[in-house]
Amino acid sequence: MSIASGPTGGPVLIVGSVAYDSVRTPFGEVTEVLGGAASYASVSASFFSPVRMVGVVGEDFTYEHVATLAHRDIDLAGLQRSSGKTFRWSGYYEYDLNQAHTIATELNVFQDFRPDLPANYRDTPYVFLANIEPGLQLSVLDQMRRPKLVVCDTMNFWIESAREKLLEVLARCDIALMNDAEAREITGEPNLITAARRVLDLGPGIAIIKKGEHGALMMSRESCFTAPSYPLEEIRDPTGAGDTFAGGLIGYLARCGETDDETLRRAVIAGSVMASFTVEDFSLDRLLRLSPEEVAERYHEIVAMTRFGAF
Amino acid sequence: MSIASGPTGGPVLIVGSVAYDSVRTPFGEVTEVLGGAASYASVSASFFSPVRMVGVVGEDFTYEHVATLAHRDIDLAGLQRSSGKTFRWSGYYEYDLNQAHTIATELNVFQDFRPDLPANYRDTPYVFLANIEPGLQLSVLDQMRRPKLVVCDTMNFWIESAREKLLEVLARCDIALMNDAEAREITGEPNLITAARRVLDLGPGIAIIKKGEHGALMMSRESCFTAPSYPLEEIRDPTGAGDTFAGGLIGYLARCGETDDETLRRAVIAGSVMASFTVEDFSLDRLLRLSPEEVAERYHEIVAMTRFGAF
Repeated sequence: MSIASGPTGGPVLIVGSVAYDSVRTPFGEVTEVLGGAASYASVSASFFSPVRMVGVVGEDFTYEHVATLAHRDIDLAGLQRSSGKTFRWSGYYEYDLNQAHTIATELNVFQDFRPDLPANYRDTPYVFLANIEPGLQLSVLDQMRRPKLVVCDTMNFWIESAREKLLEVLARCDIALMNDAEAREITGEPNLITAARRVLDLGPGIAIIKKGEHGALMMSRESCFTAPSYPLEEIRDPTGAGDTFAGGLIGYLARCGETDDETLRRAVIAGSVMASFTVEDFSLDRLLRLSPEEVAERYHEIVAMTRFGAF
Repeated sequence: MSIASGPTGGPVLIVGSVAYDSVRTPFGEVTEVLGGAASYASVSASFFSPVRMVGVVGEDFTYEHVATLAHRDIDLAGLQRSSGKTFRWSGYYEYDLNQAHTIATELNVFQDFRPDLPANYRDTPYVFLANIEPGLQLSVLDQMRRPKLVVCDTMNFWIESAREKLLEVLARCDIALMNDAEAREITGEPNLITAARRVLDLGPGIAIIKKGEHGALMMSRESCFTAPSYPLEEIRDPTGAGDTFAGGLIGYLARCGETDDETLRRAVIAGSVMASFTVEDFSLDRLLRLSPEEVAERYHEIVAMTRFGAF
């Protein structure tokens, strides 16, 4: 299929943080640049499908950034503007780039964020609940009318502090997305394959375990799929890679209008492709200058890198 | 192709250690069991091709173990028997199973090992130089007459203590096999993709980087191949996984009689399949009760786990 043709499955609703990030890596440093899970996921998904964004920003959120998102076919009717400052995160990465070290988190307007969906959002068929407090994820689901597919992300903080509500979210979603450490933590199972299977016992039909540079593992009750990450020689900033993956995944699924195993596999690769671009530069810079042709080309490169013949 | 039909490419010569290992993992403990790089690699390769083994054992090496190897179509004319004790290694693994912790290494007869190839070994077309002192690897190459393919392995100890000789080995081999940490160490390059390319600058046409549970990366000047490892839920002892991989790789190549990119990719998967069996039990126990049908079946499972459609 071509991403140039029109959508078949309908738009994607994305709920999560919109932030101003300050990030230092061995390859550079940026201050108060556009970030947040919803920003990365929405721009990534917008390559495949129309996006409806739900989040909150402060009075300091610039028109330039509003325009940046709006230009990508992202509906901002669900982006609340509150009095106060936009959520801020600052952190740094060492040479291995695998671990974000947080310097400061200022919740600001995000502290009192209560997702309130515009009426026309409630019928959105594809929903991505990015990493926010599980109670808020549930309140979004309560406002939706029979979505076709719900993907949820989370983080170690909620596994430890809001486990019961998180289990409710998992029981109500179709695809649980988490990284390897989170899958081990939520199931108490050190073996990653077993952990992925145990996540399925919590409700979702599909578990997708993100392994960073080592790719992703998708587990369902019938099938197991291992996807590599695109081998990059230059990674400038890993911030947003997981959210970009999620956006590409759900955007591609919405674009295809199917959620069978074959389509899911291609969606995982599409998500990996999008994430591989995000980490090539700071903030959303690489995604914002990315062409659909580059996306298709890198997908083909992954095909070439992974194919092998029969025994 | 079927591994039941006859070989097309000729036998494989394998040089390396034969050991008695004592190993403790969270899943059990064994004392003075058959081990060593040459043992794992030879038994693994023997699933695909006849093997000629070069190594040394002490007077304590049992007839039972000689018979174990001989029963697998492994020619033992190059296995020297010296006065003294067989090489011994003891170590343990923690729960993560990624890192071997050495308790003791007793070189014994391996200390004075000088590979002396039987006359009929010198024309062997496929050669695997397992991890031994690079000077000994070179002496084996000096005794060979125009082998068709040379694969070499090494370890951090030689990178640090015998770098110049190791570089000579790399310049004379076709496929350099090493793990991710060794690739980074030998090239001084933290990015694994760049490190793999730099290994090619040292001479070999192909670099294969073993990443343990994260699979393997094969890099040539024209192509890059990423292979997953088989997702195992029960790993009892990772000892010998890398050597088993190498044996499966070169055995499969010898079996096919081709070394083009297509064949190499299948050989990497064959090596991964063999390694995935080794780690299911201690010592060579799983390999020794493994059937060719199980090898083919697991290969097909990896095909099923990795395939995905076009964009």
